[in-house]
Amino acid sequence: MDWSSTALQYKAGLLEQVIPFWENNSRDETHGGYFTCLDRRGAVYDTDKFVWLQGRQAWMFATLYNRVEKRPQWLDMAWHGARFLHKHGHDGRFNWYFSLTREGRPLIQPCNIFSDCFAAMAFGQLFAATGDEQLADIARKTFENIIRRAGNPKGIWNKAYPGTRPLKGFSLPMILCNLSLELEHLLERELVERTISDCIHEVMDVFYDQESGLIRENVQPDGSGSDSFEGRLLNPGHAIEAMWFIMDLSVRLSQPALAKRAVEIMLRTLNFGWDAEFGGIYYFLDSQGHPPQQLEWDQKLWWVHIETLISLIKGLALTGDPECAAWFARVHEYTWARFPDLQYGEWFGYLNRRGEVLLPLKGGKWKGCFHVPRGLLQVWKTIDQHLDVDAGRP
Amino acid sequence: MDWSSTALQYKAGLLEQVIPFWENNSRDETHGGYFTCLDRRGAVYDTDKFVWLQGRQAWMFATLYNRVEKRPQWLDMAWHGARFLHKHGHDGRFNWYFSLTREGRPLIQPCNIFSDCFAAMAFGQLFAATGDEQLADIARKTFENIIRRAGNPKGIWNKAYPGTRPLKGFSLPMILCNLSLELEHLLERELVERTISDCIHEVMDVFYDQESGLIRENVQPDGSGSDSFEGRLLNPGHAIEAMWFIMDLSVRLSQPALAKRAVEIMLRTLNFGWDAEFGGIYYFLDSQGHPPQQLEWDQKLWWVHIETLISLIKGLALTGDPECAAWFARVHEYTWARFPDLQYGEWFGYLNRRGEVLLPLKGGKWKGCFHVPRGLLQVWKTIDQHLDVDAGRP
Repeated sequence: MDWSSTALQYKAGLLEQVIPFWENNSRDETHGGYFTCLDRRGAVYDTDKFVWLQGRQAWMFATLYNRVEKRPQWLDMAWHGARFLHKHGHDGRFNWYFSLTREGRPLIQPCNIFSDCFAAMAFGQLFAATGDEQLADIARKTFENIIRRAGNPKGIWNKAYPGTRPLKGFSLPMILCNLSLELEHLLERELVERTISDCIHEVMDVFYDQESGLIRENVQPDGSGSDSFEGRLLNPGHAIEAMWFIMDLSVRLSQPALAKRAVEIMLRTLNFGWDAEFGGIYYFLDSQGHPPQQLEWDQKLWWVHIETLISLIKGLALTGDPECAAWFARVHEYTWARFPDLQYGEWFGYLNRRGEVLLPLKGGKWKGCFHVPRGLLQVWKTIDQHLDVDAGRP
Repeated sequence: MDWSSTALQYKAGLLEQVIPFWENNSRDETHGGYFTCLDRRGAVYDTDKFVWLQGRQAWMFATLYNRVEKRPQWLDMAWHGARFLHKHGHDGRFNWYFSLTREGRPLIQPCNIFSDCFAAMAFGQLFAATGDEQLADIARKTFENIIRRAGNPKGIWNKAYPGTRPLKGFSLPMILCNLSLELEHLLERELVERTISDCIHEVMDVFYDQESGLIRENVQPDGSGSDSFEGRLLNPGHAIEAMWFIMDLSVRLSQPALAKRAVEIMLRTLNFGWDAEFGGIYYFLDSQGHPPQQLEWDQKLWWVHIETLISLIKGLALTGDPECAAWFARVHEYTWARFPDLQYGEWFGYLNRRGEVLLPLKGGKWKGCFHVPRGLLQVWKTIDQHLDVDAGRP
């Protein structure tokens, strides 16, 4: 690939196609926060506010301010979400609701720990942009809640009967791999080190299955498998995304062997998850080849593909593995031919197995201003900073 | 259509293609109850036991015994599930768990009121077959729990923040339309009359939307609409299925006008839900045409199509409306060309929008021995008993 022009393509996608879409369409000037349910053209079709997506968008704009350019309107956009979240997003003790009405009244209880994770990310990044200690305090208190709740993230809303089949999920240790670095600048060093060490162990030893070489979504407390729908579940995009979190940690810890292992797992997962007939990466698979319970299993989702591109470019930058370059070219071609909406900006989120648009939305309950711009930024910056752009070598 | 041969087709499907599949493959001789996670050939791929499906299969075999033929093996099969359910399925006070391990240990708490509904159906039908008062007692106590919990079916597992957007769901009043007749032989007359009257009002006045002429899945307590994902949600199969429950009630109450209204709503829903491009009935739609949050929205499901066939044939039998006959021919042709598996028996459950098999399973977490055999039985018996088979007139 021509890496110079590839970097420019991701940069232009970010700054010309994607960020303006959210700047122009998502800001709620009346009640604060962001609309995320935007149709193909950017019109609001639902006004509910999902705390995952409020936090993620505030984080994204603060990150643009911190990493791309000190544009005041980006900082203002981040504050716009952070103020709404601070005022309405939690129960007074930094347990973050799942969703709110347009006005900020709580709709769904603080039953989803990832609301807390993305709120902490937002306030941590905005603190890095502003130095406002109140923001650091919110991020710290939220992080403490997350760690406290980690053993039973669903709390009183957990429907599992105690003791029969205690499973733990991959998502939380995976997110903590990223969150620990995101919040490093405001947490005590010892807490960061312990969190990093714990979550690398969870991801690379406990959830990693030696036999298949793949990462499972749910395991028993001791890491052994469970022959059940949950225990057999594979989410290739999830595992691949986690591998770039691990690669970032390998850089932070100066452990190139860890990056090499992450690249191996990532490539194995990609080979396993790739749809040989129609191209693209499946959303869910069953490790034994049985029917998964997720009816959307064969769909091709935006976040899976952009996260894979991040993992591949970081893998290439850190290890020089030519497999990463070959796969990057393949996934890049698949992705750019199908997801971006050249007419109205941003990307489609949900394609069917054949790669045709399944839902024309640009944002919804789960898709907001996050994976696409984060991925475009990550790929652009990784090529710019770590690749010899002429040779494609790290 | 040639109604004589159509009746024979449904009868043969039931007795030769479908029931033997469950008789041969689903019985757990070691621990009791039924396996429902069966692959295309009938092999067990997961051993968890879902109380919905345990109850439904016990009900189905008791119903065959009561309505088709007094075959001892059908009664025995019903008892096989009922014994397992009685021993393991509830918390000691007839609150029914959602799922159990193969051995019967509780996996998921009694958080889903439809587990209770299908358990009550099973014990009620088996009581009708046997006269065993203990079975009637279980059904009665379970029914009392259902009525008691009806105002907040999810109980402590309800994640909605109290008061912000109180919505109620269509499923429970819909099921009660059917359950009230299913249990009439063992409940007090006054309770039956009140339940019937309440649930007809809920379905035909409260959930029915005068403006669109369609039935909504979720409404505010006073029946007004909610402009939210939940409030805009339409489930055509659900509404169409409910209409044959209402037609049954119209017969029970000798109210032909009620049947006529049900047929009108059913046909309007079918016109709205039919996929003009690929045929078949969509799973979910948004009443305003916005993207639904259900990613499986465009899939074609077995239960939607067989329930529609029941509604159409009952509509034809009760009203003689030629639209019912025309639609029956169309849905019949679509359904029989795609769902039945002529090679291994039973029906595929999940087709993609194009009508291609999405998951090759015959049973799973949500598909068991219920909709297909119930539908085949209902269509067969309705043609046999109510249609002048030569003229296709009621």
